[in-house]
Amino acid sequence: MNVTLSATLAANEDIARRRRAGERVLNLAFGEAGLPVHPALRERLEAASRENGYGPVAGAAALREAAAGYWERRGLPTDPDLVVCGPGSKPLLYALLLAIGGDIVLPMPSWVSYAAQTGLAGVQPIMVPAPSGEGGTPDPEQVAAAVSRARARGRTVGSVLVTLPDNPTGRLATPRTVRRLAQVARELDLTIISDEIYRDLVHDPDAEFLSPADVAPERTVVTSGLSKSLALGGWRIGVARLPSWPLREAMLAVASEIWSSPAAPVQHAAAYAYTEPPELVERVAASRRLHGIVARAVAGRFTRAGAIVAEPQGGFYLYPDLTPLGRSGTSGELATVLLERHGVGVLPGSAFGDRPADLSVRVATSLLYGEDEERRLAALDSPEPLELPWVAAALSHLDGALAALTPRGCPAAWPPASLAPAAP
Amino acid sequence: MNVTLSATLAANEDIARRRRAGERVLNLAFGEAGLPVHPALRERLEAASRENGYGPVAGAAALREAAAGYWERRGLPTDPDLVVCGPGSKPLLYALLLAIGGDIVLPMPSWVSYAAQTGLAGVQPIMVPAPSGEGGTPDPEQVAAAVSRARARGRTVGSVLVTLPDNPTGRLATPRTVRRLAQVARELDLTIISDEIYRDLVHDPDAEFLSPADVAPERTVVTSGLSKSLALGGWRIGVARLPSWPLREAMLAVASEIWSSPAAPVQHAAAYAYTEPPELVERVAASRRLHGIVARAVAGRFTRAGAIVAEPQGGFYLYPDLTPLGRSGTSGELATVLLERHGVGVLPGSAFGDRPADLSVRVATSLLYGEDEERRLAALDSPEPLELPWVAAALSHLDGALAALTPRGCPAAWPPASLAPAAP
Repeated sequence: MNVTLSATLAANEDIARRRRAGERVLNLAFGEAGLPVHPALRERLEAASRENGYGPVAGAAALREAAAGYWERRGLPTDPDLVVCGPGSKPLLYALLLAIGGDIVLPMPSWVSYAAQTGLAGVQPIMVPAPSGEGGTPDPEQVAAAVSRARARGRTVGSVLVTLPDNPTGRLATPRTVRRLAQVARELDLTIISDEIYRDLVHDPDAEFLSPADVAPERTVVTSGLSKSLALGGWRIGVARLPSWPLREAMLAVASEIWSSPAAPVQHAAAYAYTEPPELVERVAASRRLHGIVARAVAGRFTRAGAIVAEPQGGFYLYPDLTPLGRSGTSGELATVLLERHGVGVLPGSAFGDRPADLSVRVATSLLYGEDEERRLAALDSPEPLELPWVAAALSHLDGALAALTPRGCPAAWPPASLAPAAP
Repeated sequence: MNVTLSATLAANEDIARRRRAGERVLNLAFGEAGLPVHPALRERLEAASRENGYGPVAGAAALREAAAGYWERRGLPTDPDLVVCGPGSKPLLYALLLAIGGDIVLPMPSWVSYAAQTGLAGVQPIMVPAPSGEGGTPDPEQVAAAVSRARARGRTVGSVLVTLPDNPTGRLATPRTVRRLAQVARELDLTIISDEIYRDLVHDPDAEFLSPADVAPERTVVTSGLSKSLALGGWRIGVARLPSWPLREAMLAVASEIWSSPAAPVQHAAAYAYTEPPELVERVAASRRLHGIVARAVAGRFTRAGAIVAEPQGGFYLYPDLTPLGRSGTSGELATVLLERHGVGVLPGSAFGDRPADLSVRVATSLLYGEDEERRLAALDSPEPLELPWVAAALSHLDGALAALTPRGCPAAWPPASLAPAAP
């Protein structure tokens, strides 16, 4: 078995160890939402502490109905019986790999666990770069070619994955690309897995969001969860919206043999969350705003240091290309230098499937909001979160690290006028 | 993928559907502990409702330390860093299959999910019957022969599994068999997976319990959880005690890509549970007593109806052989008749890997304690739980079903004097 500890989780544990040993390390490596649980959700969990039955494998009816309502409010009519819940969207994605079968086309770069899961499932990832300037979707024309090649080699290809908006790039695929990908998937008879766990964290609430489920409902699975929008990563709850009964049967077969059901008290709280009561809608909106402000500010620091950074559009990530800084080696070496010499933990692009010589790193900005609940709530409530002393100090640490990383006098020509720098 | 919904979970959902439709069905199919959460655990969960971080993949340090203490009190010195926690012991068992690799020797019969998981993991189960009169361990002599045959066919065999005490048979392997199996495992270089989730529910607290970890610590993984002893099935928490660092690394690689970590509030409550405070020790003792009384009573009913039943020694299961009742067909057909004509849900032995023509069924007795918390607590507290009206009514329903199933006048010669009938 050629799989190691998930890169993000490993980096987070390494940074925690270094901090316990007294090192000052900025954690820009871990995609945890970095915000407190809303009290209304805590109340729901607490009220459900008597719940100890396994319950249905697909998840409690109330949770499935609430999740269906969530999707319906986003223009996707949903049968609650075609919703399957899991202890996080990660196990749901793994179960999809087994249930659909065959190799899977992944965007390059893409979230570390997609490719790693293929190793566990005994299939192969087919890595296809996103269209230029985009992220989270493999280029539709290249998908057709790559799948044809794989099939000519005798491989079975079952699915193609998109992340809307994307981790690691922070970018949102254009409706045009999504439409074209859906068309290609139809021609190739691929199931589309649309990981929309960051959907409610698209920074611009007026941005046009097109899900493949809007255009190819017969073949699109949508996965989501509450780990990011409501910061419930540690509660482990995810939901999948399935396009067909046979896929539901196959998913439940996998689910029943691997995880049985998500934790019952968590399901109760999640059922409440997916009804989207006003206080949680407001919390998600405040989180979205904070993530956007900080992600853009950090992108601005990288841009000023000479990196090439596409402006983050969703979630709490950016994916700067540090090539202009004039360093040699691999992205992994660069991440090691940033961590060990400059106290900044990021993940190398190679962890996301990019070529090691491409000097991109993934920067997660959500652990900058503060180390404790009080600071995190202050960041959430602040009209100017960048001016909070602990956020400003973290950004200053980052500036110092980037300055130290950049050879003196270089890069002269960056940022070129042709690139739209991300403004803080 | 040749896997269907877990037989136990499917049966439970089918019975729930029938009840909603107005059928009167006795649920003897589902291995849920059927008892309420202890208030001390509810308090711990509620107190941890702020916890929303993913935390370490291996599980929180406090939980791993508490689990290590649990095993140490049972004579197994344990390094907390060699404990890995998961959302139930089921995902831990699945991760072990992937992490160890190769085919696995299973007792025949054995819990439905072991063999089903091999289908998902792409390996094969090697089914070996238990020594006569035992359950939960494959016969050591037959293991050696079966593994040699499989290896001669070019298969890789990595592990052998035991369930102590056993589901479905309710039997506890003798120390002699465990010792011999450990010896065989050593000779064949197999990892032993010892599923001890029912360990604290061995009915006779003075029974001699030998874990393979006592005699082959270098190669034994012990899995456990709180689903059975403390009725926390729906909370999804399990623990594994690993024999080596490489296996830990491989397990964490799988865990980090499939489930990340168990739900954080549940981990806090579980950490408390594994310290074994007096109120929980008392609760487990009361549960053990109740499970034993009811399992023996149900075994007695089957024996009186003419079935062959080995006396249950642990957990809340029995595995009667209904052959003497003179019916033809398969165990699956028999279970269908019991459900559809007589309103008694059990699982056929074929679901546990037994030959379909062998007319054994697995009977789970833990859902007889009552339909609500009040009745379940009353059953737990009662000196004579069999005399509680709802328990007596359920047993009477069972008697009627068994009488109707048995051809009139038959079986004349059952039970023979040579079989020790289980006394209620």
